[in-house]
Amino acid sequence: MTAMLRLQEMGIELPPAPKPAGSYTRSVQSGRQIYVSGQLPITDGDVVFSGPVGEGGLTADQGAQAARLCALNALSILAEDAGDLERIQIVRMTGYVASAAGFTSQAQVMNGASELMAAILGERGIHARVAVGVQGLPLDAAVELEVIAEVTG
Amino acid sequence: MTAMLRLQEMGIELPPAPKPAGSYTRSVQSGRQIYVSGQLPITDGDVVFSGPVGEGGLTADQGAQAARLCALNALSILAEDAGDLERIQIVRMTGYVASAAGFTSQAQVMNGASELMAAILGERGIHARVAVGVQGLPLDAAVELEVIAEVTG
Amino acid sequence: MTAMLRLQEMGIELPPAPKPAGSYTRSVQSGRQIYVSGQLPITDGDVVFSGPVGEGGLTADQGAQAARLCALNALSILAEDAGDLERIQIVRMTGYVASAAGFTSQAQVMNGASELMAAILGERGIHARVAVGVQGLPLDAAVELEVIAEVTG
Repeated sequence: MTAMLRLQEMGIELPPAPKPAGSYTRSVQSGRQIYVSGQLPITDGDVVFSGPVGEGGLTADQGAQAARLCALNALSILAEDAGDLERIQIVRMTGYVASAAGFTSQAQVMNGASELMAAILGERGIHARVAVGVQGLPLDAAVELEVIAEVTG
Repeated sequence: MTAMLRLQEMGIELPPAPKPAGSYTRSVQSGRQIYVSGQLPITDGDVVFSGPVGEGGLTADQGAQAARLCALNALSILAEDAGDLERIQIVRMTGYVASAAGFTSQAQVMNGASELMAAILGERGIHARVAVGVQGLPLDAAVELEVIAEVTG
Repeated sequence: MTAMLRLQEMGIELPPAPKPAGSYTRSVQSGRQIYVSGQLPITDGDVVFSGPVGEGGLTADQGAQAARLCALNALSILAEDAGDLERIQIVRMTGYVASAAGFTSQAQVMNGASELMAAILGERGIHARVAVGVQGLPLDAAVELEVIAEVTG
């Protein structure tokens, strides 16, 4: 089944690819690798999951929803810039989770992004991963997701 | 116009390539990609932009100057290790901004680095980007910049 | 001398490769590059260096031991997934050090990982490096290490 069919079955519509928030571009290809710029949990230009995750902020589950939205935005960029998603292998994802003091469930947050990739891309969505807790993020986003993909075949 | 001429026109002299502050090397080439070690806002061996950016620390504008200096140090390493800057494409930059609590303008800080790359390298300076706010950095630097470049052609 | 002989001489036994703590895999190869997922200072499934490094937490020296253990776990994954360590070149390592407020010796912490790589792999262990201080890490680990390696020859 193609990634687009899976998206349809899951009732997900790929959002328009978000625009960069500064003096850079949304993705760059180097050899077969595509480096996608850091994605925020943005819908229609607005951050929809703000502030830290943890004590006094979002729950880990809300953080996972934020990470899932970042992943959807990254997929949207990959679909446009690689032509389609059929030859995309996710190589590595790094998740930066804005974290309240003492929050240590960044892996649970990032599962929101990882599980979406596997659901949409199947085997080609299985990636290496890094998850860390940071002090703060642009536009007060709860999560920022960096993706390196490979165009295969 | 070559990168070196652009530097001259802008009145910028490339600094000597900074030395690593530990048991590693300043850059490694893998295939056509050059990975530059994290650069700090250092001049003549001293960090010249210290401490967090935000409330009680540097302004976002000072942070952008720090990011610009990191980028200049990275360019200096690329020029020496790749031979010259004429075949260098900047692929991805990650900016770690030491951030006071509540600071969320990491994108504005990183524009200092991104705009320098575009000014010096033109189209080849346009890159994918990640900007995050961290708790602290080596030598109390305000910004650390990681650069992946490609040797083209 | 082979990496395995060096390990033997140093009295080090490679641990079993740690399992991913979420919906991803421990390493992905892209071209000749192997991306290893973020490694924690884990022994037999338990984090053995917890909490922040700095004021009120671990010393920089304990942090360096944590980073060394992360590096050992990464080597173990590389040995299994690349077949052996003889063709492995470490390209870039990023160290995320959970840092108490005001801690700025992340480079000293990361030397624990860098020096192990050089001791085991010799010239092929010399890498580009990034070291930053973060707010918190999964499972309350003191350090997380990300490794990109190349399979050479």
